[in-house]
Amino acid sequence: MTTVASMLRTYPSDLGRVDREAMTRCIEECMTCAQTCTACADACMSEHDDMLPMLRKCIRSCVDCADVCDTTGRVLSRHTGYDANITRAVLQACATVCRSCADECNQHANRHEHCRICAEACSACEQACQDLLMSLG
Amino acid sequence: MTTVASMLRTYPSDLGRVDREAMTRCIEECMTCAQTCTACADACMSEHDDMLPMLRKCIRSCVDCADVCDTTGRVLSRHTGYDANITRAVLQACATVCRSCADECNQHANRHEHCRICAEACSACEQACQDLLMSLG
Amino acid sequence: MTTVASMLRTYPSDLGRVDREAMTRCIEECMTCAQTCTACADACMSEHDDMLPMLRKCIRSCVDCADVCDTTGRVLSRHTGYDANITRAVLQACATVCRSCADECNQHANRHEHCRICAEACSACEQACQDLLMSLG
Amino acid sequence: MTTVASMLRTYPSDLGRVDREAMTRCIEECMTCAQTCTACADACMSEHDDMLPMLRKCIRSCVDCADVCDTTGRVLSRHTGYDANITRAVLQACATVCRSCADECNQHANRHEHCRICAEACSACEQACQDLLMSLG
Repeated sequence: MTTVASMLRTYPSDLGRVDREAMTRCIEECMTCAQTCTACADACMSEHDDMLPMLRKCIRSCVDCADVCDTTGRVLSRHTGYDANITRAVLQACATVCRSCADECNQHANRHEHCRICAEACSACEQACQDLLMSLG
Repeated sequence: MTTVASMLRTYPSDLGRVDREAMTRCIEECMTCAQTCTACADACMSEHDDMLPMLRKCIRSCVDCADVCDTTGRVLSRHTGYDANITRAVLQACATVCRSCADECNQHANRHEHCRICAEACSACEQACQDLLMSLG
Repeated sequence: MTTVASMLRTYPSDLGRVDREAMTRCIEECMTCAQTCTACADACMSEHDDMLPMLRKCIRSCVDCADVCDTTGRVLSRHTGYDANITRAVLQACATVCRSCADECNQHANRHEHCRICAEACSACEQACQDLLMSLG
Repeated sequence: MTTVASMLRTYPSDLGRVDREAMTRCIEECMTCAQTCTACADACMSEHDDMLPMLRKCIRSCVDCADVCDTTGRVLSRHTGYDANITRAVLQACATVCRSCADECNQHANRHEHCRICAEACSACEQACQDLLMSLG
């Protein structure tokens, strides 16, 4: 069991009707996507001088996506005083930002392996957000 | 002029048709709200033992709101490779979370001065997000 | 291979004489520790009313540790424009904060399983920071 | 009075022998420096194509400094369950990172106004961290 699942299991109070698998997966995808986006923005920055200009938008999308996934993973890691409005708003924003970043990274995936991996992480995170949103009803 | 406005003024490229005043104010309100929410959650934690249980939800709303405002202020501080989908998604989430947190803090405003100040900061930030969203068209 | 290792492998420029295993493990431990601390602070918040007062310091240590590990994981995920002074300063702070948080969580480990798991994550992260610091020379 | 000072004034418990002015100023400088560094990294990204390569290290220092100042401002905004080891470790790291970032930005200050403003924000933040460290004894 991952640490995310262990912490969910040891939560001392009632978790309500939350789908624990969808929740666990979404937190893990947010963590992975945040780190991958931070690393991809940095990898883009180290590409050859003449490639930097065309990677500007990709770097921007990646740093935004890292911040949003980080915050989403934090919000989802809290269960006390649950407010469905907050959770839904954050998940919707995260899904949108992940989709934008996946689209951008995919345009560079053939040329840069780090962009290919990052686009996959973003798509997986978008899907996990959508699945969790669906399970919330 | 504040530093936020100075940095916007020295941005070396085209900012498009952005409303600079609305943008500056929104970044500043996000920064203020993030810090105020972090401090309010902590102030709640130091209240008398018998008050702690009824402040659980307020503490939760404040830490979530701090994270979301922090991320929103970061996203808005970037202009290179602008993606309207990302900006709008983040602003909408931030407005929603600020409204929830303002509602929660307002319920404790008569008893706790830090909650009164925090509710005001959340409301001001929600308004600034709505104004900036409107100006984006 | 984890995503952290994949992103390190696809970094397009020279990584210098960095110990890739120590680097990968330290980033992963920072991510795990940040999430575990966020979840532990929240789990403490949901404990019985009469336990809340004695968990104040633990909650505080956990939220601080989550922030510091988050930032450390981000700094370590970047390699472009490496500055040894920055990396060392951040790793030293992270090791210190993880040790403090582990000590605090350990005092509640017998009573609260989430504190036991969190203390382990903090200790593992402290060790990973020390190992990486050592490998940097 | 700024909101930072108001929140410190309404803290419901004992703040100990903390120098309130040094604390308030340090939190404010951390907030300003974090936002300025985020904006400076982004402004660097929008400079002319042929300038991008020589700004790599500056962008890197700025994003690291933004993360560290953000975390430092959060840690300093909390007073409950105070742990001097944590506060000192974070302040020392922040002072070091701010000095590195100020040095780097200063090398581009003649050419880029945003780097000049950012170097000033970093130096002011470093000083505020040193002053607060001194006052802690």
